[in-house]
Amino acid sequence: MTKPLRLGIAGLGTVGVGVVRIVQRKADLLAARSGRPVTISAVCARNRGTDRGVRLGDYDWQDDPVALAQRDDVDVFVELMGGADGPAKAATEAAIAAGKDVVTANKAMLALHGQALASAAETAGAALRFEAAVAGGIPVVKALTEGLAGNEISRVMGVMNGTCNYILTRMQGAGLPYDEVFKEAAALGYLEADPTLDVGGIDAGHKLALLASIAFGTQVDFANVELEGIQRVEIADIEQAADMGYRIKLLGVAQMTGRGLEQRMSPCLVPADSPLGQLEGGTNMIVLEGDSVGQIVLRGAGAGEGPTASAVMSDVIDLARGTRLSTFGQPASSLARPTPAKSAVPAPYYIRMELQDKPGALAKVATVLGDAGVSIDRMRQYQHDQANAPVLIVTHKTTRKALDTAIAGMGETGVVAGQPVAIRIEEV
Amino acid sequence: MTKPLRLGIAGLGTVGVGVVRIVQRKADLLAARSGRPVTISAVCARNRGTDRGVRLGDYDWQDDPVALAQRDDVDVFVELMGGADGPAKAATEAAIAAGKDVVTANKAMLALHGQALASAAETAGAALRFEAAVAGGIPVVKALTEGLAGNEISRVMGVMNGTCNYILTRMQGAGLPYDEVFKEAAALGYLEADPTLDVGGIDAGHKLALLASIAFGTQVDFANVELEGIQRVEIADIEQAADMGYRIKLLGVAQMTGRGLEQRMSPCLVPADSPLGQLEGGTNMIVLEGDSVGQIVLRGAGAGEGPTASAVMSDVIDLARGTRLSTFGQPASSLARPTPAKSAVPAPYYIRMELQDKPGALAKVATVLGDAGVSIDRMRQYQHDQANAPVLIVTHKTTRKALDTAIAGMGETGVVAGQPVAIRIEEV
Repeated sequence: MTKPLRLGIAGLGTVGVGVVRIVQRKADLLAARSGRPVTISAVCARNRGTDRGVRLGDYDWQDDPVALAQRDDVDVFVELMGGADGPAKAATEAAIAAGKDVVTANKAMLALHGQALASAAETAGAALRFEAAVAGGIPVVKALTEGLAGNEISRVMGVMNGTCNYILTRMQGAGLPYDEVFKEAAALGYLEADPTLDVGGIDAGHKLALLASIAFGTQVDFANVELEGIQRVEIADIEQAADMGYRIKLLGVAQMTGRGLEQRMSPCLVPADSPLGQLEGGTNMIVLEGDSVGQIVLRGAGAGEGPTASAVMSDVIDLARGTRLSTFGQPASSLARPTPAKSAVPAPYYIRMELQDKPGALAKVATVLGDAGVSIDRMRQYQHDQANAPVLIVTHKTTRKALDTAIAGMGETGVVAGQPVAIRIEEV
Repeated sequence: MTKPLRLGIAGLGTVGVGVVRIVQRKADLLAARSGRPVTISAVCARNRGTDRGVRLGDYDWQDDPVALAQRDDVDVFVELMGGADGPAKAATEAAIAAGKDVVTANKAMLALHGQALASAAETAGAALRFEAAVAGGIPVVKALTEGLAGNEISRVMGVMNGTCNYILTRMQGAGLPYDEVFKEAAALGYLEADPTLDVGGIDAGHKLALLASIAFGTQVDFANVELEGIQRVEIADIEQAADMGYRIKLLGVAQMTGRGLEQRMSPCLVPADSPLGQLEGGTNMIVLEGDSVGQIVLRGAGAGEGPTASAVMSDVIDLARGTRLSTFGQPASSLARPTPAKSAVPAPYYIRMELQDKPGALAKVATVLGDAGVSIDRMRQYQHDQANAPVLIVTHKTTRKALDTAIAGMGETGVVAGQPVAIRIEEV
């Protein structure tokens, strides 16, 4: 048998324990597929005493992840601590400096420091891989970097945060407002310690920025991801969008346009009968569009012990087999610095407003839209017994700027109560 | 710039031309991602004179694919001729013997000779890759061989022949019988020269056998794929299955059971609201189930110039990058000879029959089912104005053997007109 591939695992939370379990339980399978055994030399976590339900006695315990990363008996440093900076980054840098390959699930670290780390890895002749950082068990980094490598990618999009999709589909299914479902999700342990990472779209935005880098050959540019969370999504919009044949999703979209790289992570309407519209609960879905391949859709669990550990092992087995790729699919030095698009490509929009029950009210709104150059595709005024009538409008394609002009104009008509809600309809 | 990777392309049909186009149009992209230029040294096809709408003058023309495969200026032999034997096999063997890497889209050749060819390639130190042979542009070979390599795979299933799915969804959409839609598909050029390859499930069966080999670490065993085509699917069953919440798909299923390897390609009912049930038209979908990752669903175009060429290029770029994998994910010598399962794992079944309008008729049928150990989950008798009443039964899980006993028994009751139709319901 050839030399084993020896891992040093830093971080023994859910994912770390999952990786240990696979290495222990599937040793024969891993050896058969990798052509060599995969072993663990040492592990490291914050608290040595914790019972993690997995046998760790065979491995050296290392308190310091940096020391773990530098050990002579570690070929691959598996970074599962998380956190954009601090010990995760220090240990990753130490591993790279020591010429070790690194496998990480750390989307925040790569979204913020991916270019520097990838450059350092290349200089040191080390590999830095991150399948587990995006969409859990879905092998999307591999699909994009390798499977679709012959394509010019036109758009990458997807539902990349299971918690947000759970909240939105639960709101719809139970007819409950956001605040209540948020509390449920918290009680179920579905939320990050800082829930804004989830519901604010930050976690999903990190993932989108990583995919955009691979797709467009550009340096990771999380700072220019337009972020909007799901905190302001109202049950009324979920229900009325459904009535118009749509679902509301926290949708990530990255596309290269004539005006630069557009990266958005925001609530969008998608057709209810599209694969994205049909996605329920905590599942993730990524849609990749290439000039030759057309549209490829990938669906699976975006989080959890098994799925995320599966993705970590995919990178580990690649390294065991001798597969060595650039972190973002091409040398870091060749990645272009992206020009962020200043505005999103035109799209249809959904607008919901409360219209005062006065003669000519609808005409005034329609005039304001027309004056702003926004044309109406569909309109519905609902039966009501209040002073104000709920009105829904689906526009034809328009720019966000024209839409904002129209919405500002609506406020001046004196017939619209409160602030209209406008949500982009993404054509999928 | 490092040395180019030089292709020799045999076969200039739709896919071959697609590959030439990508190499010509995306030279910079390919070089950036591969780390080296990808070039074409020579091509070969049956008729030199055909206008293929693509510039070929820069490449040497070779009449004999075997000679092409052996050229000194060819690093990768790209086999796109098709056919299980004949020139495709001869040229592939010649390429391997000459130590050339081979990329092929030829499912028939690999389904029948995959083990021998993979062994020969390993002995010669050559790579033999076939992403384009299964599900067109969907990078499923990569997802299974690499992305899910840390998983014990429990089941692989999917819709792997777009033409069959087109026919079945068109039958449903237009309410047309099989024969008419078959003629439409033929007129649209959707069918292979020998249409039995499509509608008989053979082409899809080839693909299933290839995926099963990777999934279960077994030698390709197409001979033991249980094959049933869509030729006998009736519009009545499509419509009545829909009424019960199902869709009929030509579904491939491979799973390792306690009784051996089960491989089936046959019409099955799947829930209408499942990803497989929602798959319309010519699109393909593969579902991969692993012990860690859970269920991964991949969806995309299963045929056509762009998608298939995209898959070919995925293998080419892998080779350009230096990635070298065993054909079926582990050394051919380590692949086990599978024991075919003698019978499928139990499943619920859909049964449709015409029941004579006599007192006690339904009781007789129910008794026969009960005597055979088949229990009824749901039953519907439809309104009718003929002598016979359409009756639908959905059973609980049962073996095919018990079901066949029951159906034989129904014939003897004297109350069932004609032959009942029974279709497996696959739990997805």
